[in-house]
Amino acid sequence: MQRFFSYSGMALISRSQIKLIRSLKLKKFRDELGLFVAEGDKCIGELRRGFDMHLCFSGGDITPDQLKQLSSLTTPQGAIAVFRKPAEMPLPDAADGLVLVLDGVQDPGNLGTIIRTCDWFGVHHLVCSAGTADCFSPKVVQATMGALARVHVHYTRDLAQYIRSAARGSSLPVYGTLLDGRNIYDIGAVPERGRGLLVMGSEGRGISPEVRQLVSHPLLVPSVGDGAVESLNVAVATAVVLAEFRRPQNGNSSL
Amino acid sequence: MQRFFSYSGMALISRSQIKLIRSLKLKKFRDELGLFVAEGDKCIGELRRGFDMHLCFSGGDITPDQLKQLSSLTTPQGAIAVFRKPAEMPLPDAADGLVLVLDGVQDPGNLGTIIRTCDWFGVHHLVCSAGTADCFSPKVVQATMGALARVHVHYTRDLAQYIRSAARGSSLPVYGTLLDGRNIYDIGAVPERGRGLLVMGSEGRGISPEVRQLVSHPLLVPSVGDGAVESLNVAVATAVVLAEFRRPQNGNSSL
Repeated sequence: MQRFFSYSGMALISRSQIKLIRSLKLKKFRDELGLFVAEGDKCIGELRRGFDMHLCFSGGDITPDQLKQLSSLTTPQGAIAVFRKPAEMPLPDAADGLVLVLDGVQDPGNLGTIIRTCDWFGVHHLVCSAGTADCFSPKVVQATMGALARVHVHYTRDLAQYIRSAARGSSLPVYGTLLDGRNIYDIGAVPERGRGLLVMGSEGRGISPEVRQLVSHPLLVPSVGDGAVESLNVAVATAVVLAEFRRPQNGNSSL
Repeated sequence: MQRFFSYSGMALISRSQIKLIRSLKLKKFRDELGLFVAEGDKCIGELRRGFDMHLCFSGGDITPDQLKQLSSLTTPQGAIAVFRKPAEMPLPDAADGLVLVLDGVQDPGNLGTIIRTCDWFGVHHLVCSAGTADCFSPKVVQATMGALARVHVHYTRDLAQYIRSAARGSSLPVYGTLLDGRNIYDIGAVPERGRGLLVMGSEGRGISPEVRQLVSHPLLVPSVGDGAVESLNVAVATAVVLAEFRRPQNGNSSL
């Protein structure tokens, strides 16, 4: 009898739960139900610190076939959980700390990597245009490696309006990487490192024309040598700029 | 009659060419045939500068359905080409310039982004362990945005042996990012910026134990604040370290 109860093929996940988890691959249902999915013990463990867990299945709760069916990963990681999305928060004040602004970053891997990088460099708030990938999509959640629990990701339909209001009539800098920007290593290119807004544009088109007009401090990560690619990957460019913003200032500080 | 010849649905691509292109999704056939595939006018244009083009189909040569069938992209970009892989070159001399060494980077997107970043920062040679992703796989090729034409990617079965030989008995530094490494911003952490080797490890396990022993200058990109994720994405970490290596030295240079 004992064997019966410990039979590892006996799943405790119900059909309706399977249906629920599958539906959460779509933004429509994530928004309607206020839920999202994460996979793997490590990622789930990190997210539990920041979000309420609604369901969790691992080991004998779910068969490998069921897990494979539900997983968004090439190699499922043994555990899958459903979390509640957080309530919407007011958009952040750029006087309290540097806010990263994303204008149309569409690749989920890039967005996830950017969230992970923000966590590393102590950036607590990300404000995204409506055209940016959904931070609760499975690929983004996994790429954040749990950083989603600590970095607040906001969405706004009117990014330009947010930037205008957050910059407080030019009293705070609005940085943005542009092809004709100023070398980030020039003295004076980054007058404030701990406050203001840093705008990064989409993979294909960069910062949109409307938002570009609001950039008070255009920046460029200089390339080395000749014949280089036209641009850096947006997650890489974000990281290089954030690393420079967070770099300890030397005696010949540009502040 | 003219209409017949310009009928856009009439493909000029043959069945055997379709079969060939499909086969090149697998490393086995890329190695056997010495060929690889690239997509999109821009990427193809960049790669033509560095590789011989064997076949190219766009517009009326191929139907949208055929292109979709052959494409590795979510949204096919209208053109697909087959290039010849370059002949193997001797492994690079680390006295001639900084060599980036990858010890088991498995994600194609990460490898592609790293190649693109090398091009930006003027690193001309990448040496990869046998366990690193294949730089000619479709996802890597596309993620390089054409940089593959300018950055030489080498593979070796014995990475430790290459590092030992290239470091010339400790006369050149072997940098590597390790959890107990020295802050990259410390004076003296990076005594040479233009020569030597920089080793980056795999996404899950970092640098392998055998290679770790050869790292003479362990480095760490410092995080800001508390509660941060355990690590940066490997492509992001590579970019932050390369940006620091290529950063103009100030008056208080660490050289």
